[in-house]
Amino acid sequence: MAQQGFTLWFTGLSGAGKSTLSQEIAAALEARGRRVERLDGDEIRQHLSRGLGFSRDDRNENIRRIGFVARLLSRNGAVAIAAAISPYRELRDEVRHAHEAPFVEVFVDCPLETLVKRDPKGLYAKALQGEILNFSGVSDPYEPPLAPEITVHTDRERVADSRDAILRWLDVRHLI
Amino acid sequence: MAQQGFTLWFTGLSGAGKSTLSQEIAAALEARGRRVERLDGDEIRQHLSRGLGFSRDDRNENIRRIGFVARLLSRNGAVAIAAAISPYRELRDEVRHAHEAPFVEVFVDCPLETLVKRDPKGLYAKALQGEILNFSGVSDPYEPPLAPEITVHTDRERVADSRDAILRWLDVRHLI
Repeated sequence: MAQQGFTLWFTGLSGAGKSTLSQEIAAALEARGRRVERLDGDEIRQHLSRGLGFSRDDRNENIRRIGFVARLLSRNGAVAIAAAISPYRELRDEVRHAHEAPFVEVFVDCPLETLVKRDPKGLYAKALQGEILNFSGVSDPYEPPLAPEITVHTDRERVADSRDAILRWLDVRHLI
Repeated sequence: MAQQGFTLWFTGLSGAGKSTLSQEIAAALEARGRRVERLDGDEIRQHLSRGLGFSRDDRNENIRRIGFVARLLSRNGAVAIAAAISPYRELRDEVRHAHEAPFVEVFVDCPLETLVKRDPKGLYAKALQGEILNFSGVSDPYEPPLAPEITVHTDRERVADSRDAILRWLDVRHLI
């Protein structure tokens, strides 16, 4: 029987835990025999968006390209997992509406204060000092989803709990 | 059982019959229950390569992007069918070597004289008069593959014959 593909679209601020969570989910789905492709923001920039910067237009074009690839993979039976900040609501909705397969938006929610306090790479410190420009949530907008399929709270949940919440959601809807 | 994905990479001059043949093959494979995604040069330019032109560097970047998407689809069990002129041998080989799934290069061979005579869109006439620049085979190089998996001769074969030759090749190698 042909498997139903779908896209898991993680959105959230830098450092909120999108990559970690997407790796955990990918491993869990692969263990169930699914074809899974992770579309990491940085990898896509290298392969599909060389030359694009971080202006609103360039960010949007990058998100469109991730969305296009996720759409092709998901309509061919794979699970596409996107983990890019994708700060603009309008663009996420554009990608959602272009999809033929189910599009599952996962809001990786973590308060800015917590992220600034953690800041393992020192990026927030630099952004707050104006050394990094166009930093989502600090010097550039981040528009949280209004009606995501799933919200996880990475400031107060363990990774395994967030992962299992997502797997349960998919299970109940017979996507896995 | 998980299906073995692969990439069919059509290369050849404009008007040689890449699109027609890729449509025929896609229909035949879909009829056998395969997931098939056609990556048309123009569609990819719209979705992934906005802003790129027809210089050697820009063509190569466009081919890299088609190759990246074909690679992701084929390693996830789908059949990716690329139908772009892809004039440079080095780039086709780069895409081939990046693939995890089988990469099947199909040379859609048709003599330039025949293409100039047919010329249904009048493109060769314009290229020969210098009205279109960077036209592969006329004012820009086209490097035919040295060892393609399959060669079809669209000046002397019917479309159905070329299609069936490709299907037989795939069948013998248990790819379908």
